[in-house]
Amino acid sequence: MTDALSRGGVGPAGPPGPAAGSPGLGEEQLRVLRRVGREWGRVSAAPEVWRRALPVDPDLGRFPPVAEIQPAGFGRLVSISALGPRTAGEQVDTEELPAGRLGRAGVRARRVLLGAALKSSALVTERMRKALALPVLSADALSSVAYGPEAMLAVLVLAGTAGLTYSFPVAAAIVFLMFAVGLSYRQTIRAYPHGGGSYIVASDNLGPVPGLMAAAGLMTDYILTVAVSIASGIAAITSALPSLASATVPMGVGVVILLLAGNLRGVRQAGSLFAAPTYAFIVAMFALIAFGLADSAGRGFEPRPAPALAVTETVGLLLIMRAFSSGATAMTGIEAISNAVPAFKPVEWRNARTTLTWMVSLLIAMFAGIVVLVHLAGVVPREQETVLSQLARLSFGSGWMYVFIQAATAAVLLLAANTAYNDFPRVLSLLARDGYAPRVFMRMGDRLAYSNGIVLLSLAAALVFVAFDGLTGALIPLYAVGVFLAFTLSQTGMVVHWWRLRDRHWRKSLFFNATGGLLSAVVFITAGISKFTSGAWVAIVAVVLFLLVTTRIRRHYEAAHAALRLHPRSIELPAHSAEGPPAGQPPPLAPETRAAPADGNGEDEEVPEEIHHLSVVAVAALDLAGMRALAYAASLQQPVLALHIGLTEEEARRFRGYWTLWGDHLPLEIVISPYRAVVAPLVHYIEALHRQHPDLTLTVILPEIVTRHRRHQLLHSRTATRLRRALRPLPKIVITTVPFHL
Amino acid sequence: MTDALSRGGVGPAGPPGPAAGSPGLGEEQLRVLRRVGREWGRVSAAPEVWRRALPVDPDLGRFPPVAEIQPAGFGRLVSISALGPRTAGEQVDTEELPAGRLGRAGVRARRVLLGAALKSSALVTERMRKALALPVLSADALSSVAYGPEAMLAVLVLAGTAGLTYSFPVAAAIVFLMFAVGLSYRQTIRAYPHGGGSYIVASDNLGPVPGLMAAAGLMTDYILTVAVSIASGIAAITSALPSLASATVPMGVGVVILLLAGNLRGVRQAGSLFAAPTYAFIVAMFALIAFGLADSAGRGFEPRPAPALAVTETVGLLLIMRAFSSGATAMTGIEAISNAVPAFKPVEWRNARTTLTWMVSLLIAMFAGIVVLVHLAGVVPREQETVLSQLARLSFGSGWMYVFIQAATAAVLLLAANTAYNDFPRVLSLLARDGYAPRVFMRMGDRLAYSNGIVLLSLAAALVFVAFDGLTGALIPLYAVGVFLAFTLSQTGMVVHWWRLRDRHWRKSLFFNATGGLLSAVVFITAGISKFTSGAWVAIVAVVLFLLVTTRIRRHYEAAHAALRLHPRSIELPAHSAEGPPAGQPPPLAPETRAAPADGNGEDEEVPEEIHHLSVVAVAALDLAGMRALAYAASLQQPVLALHIGLTEEEARRFRGYWTLWGDHLPLEIVISPYRAVVAPLVHYIEALHRQHPDLTLTVILPEIVTRHRRHQLLHSRTATRLRRALRPLPKIVITTVPFHL
Repeated sequence: MTDALSRGGVGPAGPPGPAAGSPGLGEEQLRVLRRVGREWGRVSAAPEVWRRALPVDPDLGRFPPVAEIQPAGFGRLVSISALGPRTAGEQVDTEELPAGRLGRAGVRARRVLLGAALKSSALVTERMRKALALPVLSADALSSVAYGPEAMLAVLVLAGTAGLTYSFPVAAAIVFLMFAVGLSYRQTIRAYPHGGGSYIVASDNLGPVPGLMAAAGLMTDYILTVAVSIASGIAAITSALPSLASATVPMGVGVVILLLAGNLRGVRQAGSLFAAPTYAFIVAMFALIAFGLADSAGRGFEPRPAPALAVTETVGLLLIMRAFSSGATAMTGIEAISNAVPAFKPVEWRNARTTLTWMVSLLIAMFAGIVVLVHLAGVVPREQETVLSQLARLSFGSGWMYVFIQAATAAVLLLAANTAYNDFPRVLSLLARDGYAPRVFMRMGDRLAYSNGIVLLSLAAALVFVAFDGLTGALIPLYAVGVFLAFTLSQTGMVVHWWRLRDRHWRKSLFFNATGGLLSAVVFITAGISKFTSGAWVAIVAVVLFLLVTTRIRRHYEAAHAALRLHPRSIELPAHSAEGPPAGQPPPLAPETRAAPADGNGEDEEVPEEIHHLSVVAVAALDLAGMRALAYAASLQQPVLALHIGLTEEEARRFRGYWTLWGDHLPLEIVISPYRAVVAPLVHYIEALHRQHPDLTLTVILPEIVTRHRRHQLLHSRTATRLRRALRPLPKIVITTVPFHL
Repeated sequence: MTDALSRGGVGPAGPPGPAAGSPGLGEEQLRVLRRVGREWGRVSAAPEVWRRALPVDPDLGRFPPVAEIQPAGFGRLVSISALGPRTAGEQVDTEELPAGRLGRAGVRARRVLLGAALKSSALVTERMRKALALPVLSADALSSVAYGPEAMLAVLVLAGTAGLTYSFPVAAAIVFLMFAVGLSYRQTIRAYPHGGGSYIVASDNLGPVPGLMAAAGLMTDYILTVAVSIASGIAAITSALPSLASATVPMGVGVVILLLAGNLRGVRQAGSLFAAPTYAFIVAMFALIAFGLADSAGRGFEPRPAPALAVTETVGLLLIMRAFSSGATAMTGIEAISNAVPAFKPVEWRNARTTLTWMVSLLIAMFAGIVVLVHLAGVVPREQETVLSQLARLSFGSGWMYVFIQAATAAVLLLAANTAYNDFPRVLSLLARDGYAPRVFMRMGDRLAYSNGIVLLSLAAALVFVAFDGLTGALIPLYAVGVFLAFTLSQTGMVVHWWRLRDRHWRKSLFFNATGGLLSAVVFITAGISKFTSGAWVAIVAVVLFLLVTTRIRRHYEAAHAALRLHPRSIELPAHSAEGPPAGQPPPLAPETRAAPADGNGEDEEVPEEIHHLSVVAVAALDLAGMRALAYAASLQQPVLALHIGLTEEEARRFRGYWTLWGDHLPLEIVISPYRAVVAPLVHYIEALHRQHPDLTLTVILPEIVTRHRRHQLLHSRTATRLRRALRPLPKIVITTVPFHL
């Protein structure tokens, strides 16, 4: 069951491919399928009825078979490219064809915005050189220095100048953490050359629940990456242009919409375009640090005095813990490279490792540089202006260099938000592949992106952004918990991995991973405790809810999968008849399971010849729609019963009169409904029929008037729709709609 | 066509009855029906197939036939009372049975709030004595004096004391109008003893468009009656208790909800309960007038000086016109008695006339009395307190008599609002009967009320009330236009009626009606011009929109009716074959109409034997749901084609492999969808099939997974639903769903 559930289109390693919706059958199911087929052939007296020459040429005269035709059978593969006149060339409507003018305009707008649909064969993976992979994959991590140091200082400053003196030790601890986690991920890259996201590593080594917790952490992380990066990017802009500050929320929502549209269109391929902002940001940061240090060197590294500060808290363990966990958000995104190992040029893992080393070095240098610079420049966090902007303004005034630094910061943060747009839908698709998330998240959209995941991320991020007024400081407490939960579980999973594997160097790898995991756990617990009331509880509640929902989804899928499996009642019978019941053993269960199938609704699989039909036609009036339904029912050559709901006795008598006049061709039953209801008496009647003859398959035939414009449908009774909805839960009932078009 | 459309359940005179949804067939349709039946018997070789013994006893063992069984045929009437165990006794679920717990709780709440469903046979008309009819039918008209005089004065006071001097002449004109319109309606009562609402009188005598205009006027009138009466009633309360003034809007909405619930429950029968407030109001008004006059008589009828007034307008024709049309709102509801003639005890029209005379006399006396009293007491309209409240306070202070007057006023206004709840749904049901409004408004709910109309009125009234902040003064300008439009058209219709009839007294009646109509027209035009900008335009736009929408609805129903009529192609053929084509005349059209039916979708009625089937089963997977659909299709003993959408070529090959393994029992067609869409290729394929063989009736069989809880449905593909929606517009396609229950 699990294996069949988890088998996607392209194997269990990568995210699900275009055919993910149609998993293959397991060995056992294949055997059952063969048996079921034999049963059809054996029980059915006249299989040639179904094989009877089709009234149509199945070729439709035009559909050129793209694959070889299997000579003996019917199976044939047809390319969509020749499907009717409206599918000429490559431009295929992949949507249902919307009836209204509005719907068609929607499709056109979609094509203009998102571009033409892409064929599945367009799915190629771009391999990246290290010089390209570095900026693309490290935008998230490096951009974190735009808000990480500031988040740390914003906590320490609450204790005034005394608090700020702790900035070096706290920063040193964070740098050590970066170093350890970086080393730790180097081990992951070696162990998971196909990409070792936290979800995969944790579920592989620790089991499904830790895997789901890691996924929960990751997904809150990605949502918050979008929200925090956008908030911080906009702060970089409003620091330069304070007049825009009031438009923070609409600007942020606008950026989310841009990212949504861009990612639905599928901008992932444009890697080289994405390299520029990251390199620009790296240049900007090092220029800032170098210029600041040079300037300070001129003053003998004497720190400028910080402005007088209002002290609202005293220095204590809790404050230090909060500062530490806030500053640790500078590490978010550090796992990106280990997820994307297959995107590197061969030898993949070696190139990925080298890139990771570069990235962590850059991250540490930039983080440490900025903390030192802040100290030397005597800058403290302010509400109207980011720390980076203050530093840049101190060094470069408001000249082009300042503008360059702010623009590069904003650009790299936007890019970091975009990273989450790649990762969130991918993790969600993996969860969906494993049955933990609705299957729609496995579906690739027109542009080969996991569109539903992209839309969900946009909604969640926009919601969070608006709820917190787009304030970076308010979002930070939520952030750290998810990130470090995922880190912890991922590293712990690696520890288990090495312990199980015990290959060459396993001790060293295990040590690094254990250190990384332990430190991550410390940050996770620190963040969870010290920021519980200021927002971490939201993240914790989200993780718990996520666990509950995903496991229930999985349970449903497992139940559905079990219910949908073929399980022929005769599978045990041949053995039974051949050998007889073994002495002293209970008789085989097969006949019982035949009498009472799993859910007792009588919906076991059946051989066509065993299905006994009764068609029930619901006729409201003897008009053309009603007559067509009656003729259709009669033409099926099965027993038919017409059912009419009489609203008054007078009306019922009149209808019977019409029936007689028509010729009384079919059995008619009139139910008088003194309460004027139509749907309930019909459903009751059909329920009673089923109770009396549970062996019958009842086909309820409903005439339905279909109008050309949807608004006109309001003018006609919704009885057919309501009946269909009311009949759906009843067992062994087939619902047939005979549309009549006005 | 028109006759069949307009024939309701209880004849064309009254509003549609419980069986209104099932109109009878016309003579011509009955002839066609007989011919169609003969055709079934003639063409079909083996009608006994359909008549083949039913696999079930149609009696279901338990359904006692309540009516005689027609021995020769199948027709049989079954009472609902014996329908299954859950329908024991009278408590029948008239709703579809909601699946979820929430749905069931909703049904229970509904039962508690609205009471048990009523049988259609509970529909009896209460006949009223005059002493009961007077309060019940005149609440609307008499309560109008609570706001009419004040509305007139509120306009005059804009010109200060000079304006107030015109109050007597304007009031005299209004009293004359009341007298003339009252006389006019006396004629209507004589001519329409079955009830002569403006809609009926105007459509009968002037044609459909004036009828619709009258209906539009009436319906805006009823909506505004609710809004204005509630606003005025709340003003009576807040005059006594000023602290409640800030809660005007929520209180008003609350009253609308109360009226909605009460009327859905069906409070109409409690006529005697409704007599009390009206009589109390009459007593209160006459006590007020008598006490005020006595008091003034003590002062030699010397008017007290009015307070100093800010003059914002000069006295001019427009001001007088506005005052006149505002004051004329005191006449609203005067038509109620002429609508309800059949509710009187015999001789109905004579009793109704007497009651009308009483009512108009009371109305004139109260209106004139209040205007005189206002003049003598020197009272002017104020925002915080109604004129009636000021008068009562002057006479009685704040004692129990004051409280009685305010309470009686509020009660009668509430009752007036309730009157609209009887009339609005009735007019709407008449419009629906005639095809001018959606048919749902003809449907009687559980409690034998036209529930949908009641809900619509509540929504509209609440919307208007909230939009105008519950201010009577703001609503008055909208009010007069609709009322007097209906009056004018109704009286004009009566003029035409008398002219056509020319019975005894016709000249006198025509004269009275002409006078009433002319004066009403004057008020209509006056109101339309003088208050155009202050709100009348809303009413005029509403009337025009109403006309547009209703005529388009009617046009759709006519087209639908024509399309649904039976029109056998062979109806002309026997004559043709017997006589041969007459020389020199064009050949009969019958064969052509056969080849190309009205709408060209091939959905002409057919005889069962002529229907050629092809079942197309959409199989996504060879699981139990898919196999059941295949078995169902095969068991129909008609040609079957299985259709699978392959998402990738690999997946398609794999599926074909499974098919072969299964035994290749049915023809299979695999369409490869390179764009990963499922619905569109399937629809395209079926469209292509239809184009190639328009003679075939295609039955598209869709397996559909039905979950027990609705939220779980989100976890399964919506393909079946989307396919159904996409296939609905295609001609000659029958859609069959084979549900599989998890």
